[in-house]
Amino acid sequence: MQRHIDVELARVKDEMVRMAGLAEAAIGLSVKALVSRDAEAARQVIASDDAINALEMEVDEMCLRTMALYQPEAKDLRFLAMALKINNDLERMGDQAVNIAERTLELLKEPLLKPLIDIPRMAETVQRMVKESLDAFVQQDALKARAVCRQDDEVDRYDDQIFRELLTYMMEDPKAITRSVSLILVSRHLERIADHATNIAEDVIYLAEGKNIKHHAQDRAAAPGA
Amino acid sequence: MQRHIDVELARVKDEMVRMAGLAEAAIGLSVKALVSRDAEAARQVIASDDAINALEMEVDEMCLRTMALYQPEAKDLRFLAMALKINNDLERMGDQAVNIAERTLELLKEPLLKPLIDIPRMAETVQRMVKESLDAFVQQDALKARAVCRQDDEVDRYDDQIFRELLTYMMEDPKAITRSVSLILVSRHLERIADHATNIAEDVIYLAEGKNIKHHAQDRAAAPGA
Repeated sequence: MQRHIDVELARVKDEMVRMAGLAEAAIGLSVKALVSRDAEAARQVIASDDAINALEMEVDEMCLRTMALYQPEAKDLRFLAMALKINNDLERMGDQAVNIAERTLELLKEPLLKPLIDIPRMAETVQRMVKESLDAFVQQDALKARAVCRQDDEVDRYDDQIFRELLTYMMEDPKAITRSVSLILVSRHLERIADHATNIAEDVIYLAEGKNIKHHAQDRAAAPGA
Repeated sequence: MQRHIDVELARVKDEMVRMAGLAEAAIGLSVKALVSRDAEAARQVIASDDAINALEMEVDEMCLRTMALYQPEAKDLRFLAMALKINNDLERMGDQAVNIAERTLELLKEPLLKPLIDIPRMAETVQRMVKESLDAFVQQDALKARAVCRQDDEVDRYDDQIFRELLTYMMEDPKAITRSVSLILVSRHLERIADHATNIAEDVIYLAEGKNIKHHAQDRAAAPGA
């Protein structure tokens, strides 16, 4: 028999999937704008942030209303509390996409520094992490969540590599400094999005296994049972 | 008459005040380590992060247990849900202090680039924001919370100024680039801490006034009734 609260919980999930979809699209479009030097796309990312912000407020309200109305038992309560946290991570991903779009508009004022290879690759990994972290949440799948945590190391490696490459550009030519710093910050924005996805994944593992792995880095990459 | 749940809510507040105190101290010590080139202090910041992480897990558990045990009414439920969110902001502040300490250890491998003036000033403002955001939360004081939001603009101005000054150092001397980028990132870490404090303040305003100002920047700086 379906309980009334299940309808509410399903609605919360649906709205969060929609929000993750918007965040993922914003990340993709912001990096596309950067790579193809497309100011119009960058402005579109900035404009689309309102929809993500509105959804955050809506989901917050839905969670609090459901808690108050249904006085849910432990498992559902824990789900709703985690939804509140994850919701905040999704919204901040949108903010980071806006930051990338804003840096893109700055970068477009100057000629191209170099063809971008690693940043779009890094962005692909980050987008995948966003999608998979939300899939893991909706399906309450700790195995999928662990796969997201593992990809965070790959993103950190990209970030390091991009940083070191751009340092050499700056060393060689002072005129490259402003643009190099902007690109370092873009890489940092992507890295923060990956952090948010990792946070979501850690919350999912906590939810599914009742085990908080947040501060046990050694557990993160381990497959369950390994 | 005091209700049982009030005892729990007071405990949640106490633990969060302790956590904010630790975060504030870690921020102060990380910047002191940077300014006075003190590797020992930097290592102390990195070591102290475990205590903040442990408190985060403890407070999360307390909030969830209180929700499950007492089935609180709307107002208390909203408080506990916000505590979960704010708790996460406090923990991430600690992470940022660790990042500053790690960059400090890197910077200590090279000679001093320049005497640091703006970074310690910026750090003072950021520490004050951390303290005042938690005071506002504990006292549920929306007026105090609004004062925190206003200081965020000051921090952004410091961040801009530091960024521009360090750009000139890099332009003049390629040997200054690595250290300049490290200091730019320190400034960025401080700016993120201020963002977390602002998030907390916005949650307090929401809690106190039932009004979500997160995505209405024009409301943030306005005094109530203005």
